[in-house]
Amino acid sequence: MEQRFFASDNSSPAHPAVLEAVARANNGHAGSYGADPWTAEAIQQLQQLFGTGTTVPEVLLAYNGTGANTMALRALVPRYGSVLCTGIAHINRDEAGAVQAAGAGRLCAVPGENGKLGPDDIRRWADDQGVEHHSQPAAVSITQPTEIGTLYSLTELQEIAACCREHRVKLHMDGARFANACVALGCSPAEAAAGVDMLAFGGTKNGMLFGEAVVVFDAETAGQLRYHRKQLAQLHSKMRYIGAQFTALLQDGLYLENAAAANAAAAQLAAGVAALQAPDVAVVYPVEANGVFLRMPAPAAQTLQQHWPFYCWEPGVYRIMCSWDTREEDIASFLRELKKECG
Amino acid sequence: MEQRFFASDNSSPAHPAVLEAVARANNGHAGSYGADPWTAEAIQQLQQLFGTGTTVPEVLLAYNGTGANTMALRALVPRYGSVLCTGIAHINRDEAGAVQAAGAGRLCAVPGENGKLGPDDIRRWADDQGVEHHSQPAAVSITQPTEIGTLYSLTELQEIAACCREHRVKLHMDGARFANACVALGCSPAEAAAGVDMLAFGGTKNGMLFGEAVVVFDAETAGQLRYHRKQLAQLHSKMRYIGAQFTALLQDGLYLENAAAANAAAAQLAAGVAALQAPDVAVVYPVEANGVFLRMPAPAAQTLQQHWPFYCWEPGVYRIMCSWDTREEDIASFLRELKKECG
Amino acid sequence: MEQRFFASDNSSPAHPAVLEAVARANNGHAGSYGADPWTAEAIQQLQQLFGTGTTVPEVLLAYNGTGANTMALRALVPRYGSVLCTGIAHINRDEAGAVQAAGAGRLCAVPGENGKLGPDDIRRWADDQGVEHHSQPAAVSITQPTEIGTLYSLTELQEIAACCREHRVKLHMDGARFANACVALGCSPAEAAAGVDMLAFGGTKNGMLFGEAVVVFDAETAGQLRYHRKQLAQLHSKMRYIGAQFTALLQDGLYLENAAAANAAAAQLAAGVAALQAPDVAVVYPVEANGVFLRMPAPAAQTLQQHWPFYCWEPGVYRIMCSWDTREEDIASFLRELKKECG
Amino acid sequence: MEQRFFASDNSSPAHPAVLEAVARANNGHAGSYGADPWTAEAIQQLQQLFGTGTTVPEVLLAYNGTGANTMALRALVPRYGSVLCTGIAHINRDEAGAVQAAGAGRLCAVPGENGKLGPDDIRRWADDQGVEHHSQPAAVSITQPTEIGTLYSLTELQEIAACCREHRVKLHMDGARFANACVALGCSPAEAAAGVDMLAFGGTKNGMLFGEAVVVFDAETAGQLRYHRKQLAQLHSKMRYIGAQFTALLQDGLYLENAAAANAAAAQLAAGVAALQAPDVAVVYPVEANGVFLRMPAPAAQTLQQHWPFYCWEPGVYRIMCSWDTREEDIASFLRELKKECG
Repeated sequence: MEQRFFASDNSSPAHPAVLEAVARANNGHAGSYGADPWTAEAIQQLQQLFGTGTTVPEVLLAYNGTGANTMALRALVPRYGSVLCTGIAHINRDEAGAVQAAGAGRLCAVPGENGKLGPDDIRRWADDQGVEHHSQPAAVSITQPTEIGTLYSLTELQEIAACCREHRVKLHMDGARFANACVALGCSPAEAAAGVDMLAFGGTKNGMLFGEAVVVFDAETAGQLRYHRKQLAQLHSKMRYIGAQFTALLQDGLYLENAAAANAAAAQLAAGVAALQAPDVAVVYPVEANGVFLRMPAPAAQTLQQHWPFYCWEPGVYRIMCSWDTREEDIASFLRELKKECG
Repeated sequence: MEQRFFASDNSSPAHPAVLEAVARANNGHAGSYGADPWTAEAIQQLQQLFGTGTTVPEVLLAYNGTGANTMALRALVPRYGSVLCTGIAHINRDEAGAVQAAGAGRLCAVPGENGKLGPDDIRRWADDQGVEHHSQPAAVSITQPTEIGTLYSLTELQEIAACCREHRVKLHMDGARFANACVALGCSPAEAAAGVDMLAFGGTKNGMLFGEAVVVFDAETAGQLRYHRKQLAQLHSKMRYIGAQFTALLQDGLYLENAAAANAAAAQLAAGVAALQAPDVAVVYPVEANGVFLRMPAPAAQTLQQHWPFYCWEPGVYRIMCSWDTREEDIASFLRELKKECG
Repeated sequence: MEQRFFASDNSSPAHPAVLEAVARANNGHAGSYGADPWTAEAIQQLQQLFGTGTTVPEVLLAYNGTGANTMALRALVPRYGSVLCTGIAHINRDEAGAVQAAGAGRLCAVPGENGKLGPDDIRRWADDQGVEHHSQPAAVSITQPTEIGTLYSLTELQEIAACCREHRVKLHMDGARFANACVALGCSPAEAAAGVDMLAFGGTKNGMLFGEAVVVFDAETAGQLRYHRKQLAQLHSKMRYIGAQFTALLQDGLYLENAAAANAAAAQLAAGVAALQAPDVAVVYPVEANGVFLRMPAPAAQTLQQHWPFYCWEPGVYRIMCSWDTREEDIASFLRELKKECG
Repeated sequence: MEQRFFASDNSSPAHPAVLEAVARANNGHAGSYGADPWTAEAIQQLQQLFGTGTTVPEVLLAYNGTGANTMALRALVPRYGSVLCTGIAHINRDEAGAVQAAGAGRLCAVPGENGKLGPDDIRRWADDQGVEHHSQPAAVSITQPTEIGTLYSLTELQEIAACCREHRVKLHMDGARFANACVALGCSPAEAAAGVDMLAFGGTKNGMLFGEAVVVFDAETAGQLRYHRKQLAQLHSKMRYIGAQFTALLQDGLYLENAAAANAAAAQLAAGVAALQAPDVAVVYPVEANGVFLRMPAPAAQTLQQHWPFYCWEPGVYRIMCSWDTREEDIASFLRELKKECG
């Protein structure tokens, strides 16, 4: 039996349309470092997606999520600044100190609730403003959807954005799975990013070979990000290959289609687990995007991991991450096996 | 007329075989961050290419040349260290302070001759060892072939490597065009890298979509590089796509074939310019790899740049960079136009 | 009435003997950057204090505690490393990101108990070793006495040191008030630092004008620290003035005498508070060195702060820090006023 | 015979008045980190010295010159910025990579003439503005007087400042010996710093035990420097001792008196060498402040260095640095010995 991975959405391949776009772009010579028509088109599409009437955000393409987050925070945060995030934030837990290494701010992690921070966290943290013994509160970083598959509601986002403006700190959104949020919230990308200063818009996990975009809404830092991108080695010379992928992903809403498929698979799994009514198995966090966190006995997990590799999130809790290409049958067979082990 | 770029070898597309390998790898799920069969195979092939009998070098894949150079130097150089290079070294001139930003050493640039530094430069620089007021000499970085298309001979390399060992400093080689050097020197990759501690082995400029490899010969730093790679955002999650490209490039010596084509185009151009006997046009540096530096009148350059974009290297001197896909006809038509302008 | 500060032990002046030593050293010319007899003597005295038979630790003088801690951790921790400390650690809470800014490691803060971390914290944190997505556990940093005036017992220290050796991580001790610990533990400096790799030995808070020492026990990093010191701007040109102060402080155990006076004042205060039996006033943490943390009503605190400035540590809790020059009468009058307010 | 040092002006002791001020300040308790009357007075005096009518510059005290320069540049230069300086600039040659380590900009060193850079250097360097492959030109750093004892004239300074404004880059002045420049130029401190954005005003080499001041003229960065100071470990807790020293130095123009004495000693030496008419001995650079660079035979230098330690600047050239306490007799006896060796 072929292994189907629930380890991460980056275990999935690229969408065929994305690969075809790369093949089409692989024709003749083109300007380097973004001076090519594919990149220009991708940027224009992203600007339309995120623009609001008269305002056109700046858009830069980059290699990966860690790079996109780091260059964004580096542009938003002074060297003596601190960044508020949750303890489980990818920038805090999984990026090996990339942010600090880039001089992009000191991370101040709070526990959060259901993977989310809120205005009270911001207020407490902002108390350090003006006190020279402490890193200066400079930016809030939220992940949407969060690392545990939950969502900030639009109301929660508005409150956070308002609180950031009130304290004159910037708002960064790690949108490695931003499309999944748009689908789940049922809103446009522009609405889902309202009040955000810089958004890392994910491509890799949503059907690309590689590539992310950073969308700059903040007028104060516009124009500076490209220098950070180059200095942090995130500027691709053959940029056309990232540009072409994005044009395919944005064509006819493929990015939403991919995200919807992943979200649906997660919902299918959550429903299946509920129907199972196994006493030892439970969904731990609200399933609002494409991740399901399951409590289950370790022996069951070990058996399941052989055919459906996935990670242990914390003792007794396992992360099942669905992808754009997760099939109904993948979930169904996983549930059958789960029932066999725990039912 | 279609534009043919001499601006950089990264204006060229990916080789069809490379793209096919990516398409083949785009099938089903795979482990992330290098835990996939394509990456494993690529690493094994590179280890065979660079291994010498009993010693097997460590190999890591990365996104781009700036990233590969930076992570290599960061692993070789203490935070208080300095790196000797030429003024025209890519790490010094074109990477926007990436090395310094990563805490990977302070660059000490020397003029060099024909783009190359030598043992005397190393000795003078190494004089600072033990003097606490100065950055501590820690690594020598050479580019092979150099940024002006010249080559270190194997003898020159041996002398440099011996001098590095004598002063207990590390030797880094920026091999963004390393295959072009192997072809030109007529030696194996292992021979061309003899004495080197870390090699950034280029893929992007030699027919890949993206991707470079770092080959670690230095036993003292082995095992550490992967932490630097992650922290510098050079670890690709869908690594299989870099791995697959390398397997295609290394298959049946395609990497050498590509490099040979680029070198031949440069030789064709140099010979054509010599035959031209135009008083205002001259080849400035020895043409030993795939770059030709031409002195020519600015108006001629401006006319030529319309169909064959290329860079001005310094006032009156222009860089013509040939690629794996530069055709005889590209050179021939360029020469015809050059003759028309300057003959 | 003259204000007497309980805000910090750095509100106190220098001890007269220290100032006299500076005056004596202020005579004629001397070599810079430590090449002077006063520095040589201070280093020799510190080496005797901390040496154990055949082993002679390396000693370097620096300006201040933040600098001493930062240069020590920078020498102990690779750029991709993490440092375990408590949340209230001075390096975490009060040094404005100095450690991260210097590339001296990412701080992983744990709550700790009574201001202290333990082997279990170390083991949990060390689990990240070998996982490339996380900063690599590299050093444990403990403060002795802690920021809340408690002490690691010699047994606790031994257990921590053993656990560090077991996991091959380094042990750093922030000894801004190290002399207070020696007095309280009733042991020699060498005993109090047993198992430590680098100790920041405080001078400023114990009666000096300025100046700290870093004692290097770790053979692996010996010889490297001086380059970090220079690069971090902690190398004083007119070093004789730091050296001379240390010779005065170490002469006839003055450093212990000063520390004993501060500890005694704290004990006097704690006893007085206990005797007060005021329902609203309580000593919050064990008083084991020269700091007393008092819970008291905010209005009482505000009244007292006018004559005895001190900090609010957290809502309702106030830090009373005693100095080498805190007098019995200072404590007595403070207690009288406290009684008036809360008795 | 007592050794008299010409190695550096930091081989000299503190002026007695400075030490007396420290002793006077060593009385009772005081607020930390600058919240004391001595610091307040020093800052006020410096603000008067550098203020121009309605504008009052920000002033911060720091430990040493490397720290003062680094924190100033860090406040003026973005992380992707470059700093233009001469190759012999102290920040480039003698500060062990402190600027780069602090993320305070990449140094671009030009040869300069007589130790000075000029508008043409600035224009060439500023050409990189807007090119993302290069560090972005952000600040010019000049040393006044220069490291080889020459002076920028007020006209030269005006031209440099105008050129900086034209290219929207900041102007930093390393004024480790700024008082010597004021005396030599015969102008007020405010005039000598006209057009400068941040000045590191030296105290240590002009008769203090330790301590420098940074004067911030640039309105855009005002308010930020204190966070850099803390993060770079340049904030002294017992600040009163730096403040008191500055009040003594500024009292009745003592700082000018000290500088004048050092300058006069250098002039005496230069005149004496000229009068010597020894064929092997020559003054190499214009003697415009307190440094004299002598070409002399190595054996003569070695003999002289025994009683008057000084540094070899480059093969055959030696640096003689005069201090506030260099006596006429010191110079006279040095000249006698020089004559004996070379006359």
